[in-house]
Amino acid sequence: MSFRERLEEVCRGVDGAVACSLMGVDGIEVETHVQDGGGLDVKSLLVEYSGVLRSAREAAEAHEAGGVDELAISTDKLQAVVRLVTPEYFMVVALLPGANTGKARYLLRVTAPKLKAEL
Amino acid sequence: MSFRERLEEVCRGVDGAVACSLMGVDGIEVETHVQDGGGLDVKSLLVEYSGVLRSAREAAEAHEAGGVDELAISTDKLQAVVRLVTPEYFMVVALLPGANTGKARYLLRVTAPKLKAEL
Repeated sequence: MSFRERLEEVCRGVDGAVACSLMGVDGIEVETHVQDGGGLDVKSLLVEYSGVLRSAREAAEAHEAGGVDELAISTDKLQAVVRLVTPEYFMVVALLPGANTGKARYLLRVTAPKLKAEL
Repeated sequence: MSFRERLEEVCRGVDGAVACSLMGVDGIEVETHVQDGGGLDVKSLLVEYSGVLRSAREAAEAHEAGGVDELAISTDKLQAVVRLVTPEYFMVVALLPGANTGKARYLLRVTAPKLKAEL
């Protein structure tokens, strides 16, 4: 299964998912599936969130809390759940407010090892 | 009820909670209840997470995703759930890995308006 198909599968698995991306921690996108942008420039926002992930990682490492494995950011218009796939790559799913983030987290958890095997 | 008592109440409400803090978005602590530090310098880490919150807020605002209302960061050794109380103040609860973050999120959601009323 291609990266794109795996990302699409995550989106299909959660009502309210608008996009799912595989990205480098440096913010460079590998592949993105956009389900429905909801009027926002979701792709650019997700790239921006890679910077948030980097700052969380630096904070955690500086205090010996270990590596960041998950990050979730919720705003008025969008929820995002980020999961590390390898130290260099992460998956992120964007969801409408009120969507089931628990289901999204679960799908990222089971999909990440499959992507990792192909990276 | 004092700030400290409210923070303590949140910690008592979730198994595995190690600390709960009320902080300024600038990273200045208003009040913290530490239940059990788990060997980490939790207080300093939570201060550092205010920087992560600021970077998430800048990212979201730059892309018109609205204000950040919640942020969750999970590392090997600690989970943290952050909730905005006002645009200037946030609550954060730190939990051991595997603790019930859903319960923590719920407790922050119900406690935040009570703290807001007293700020």
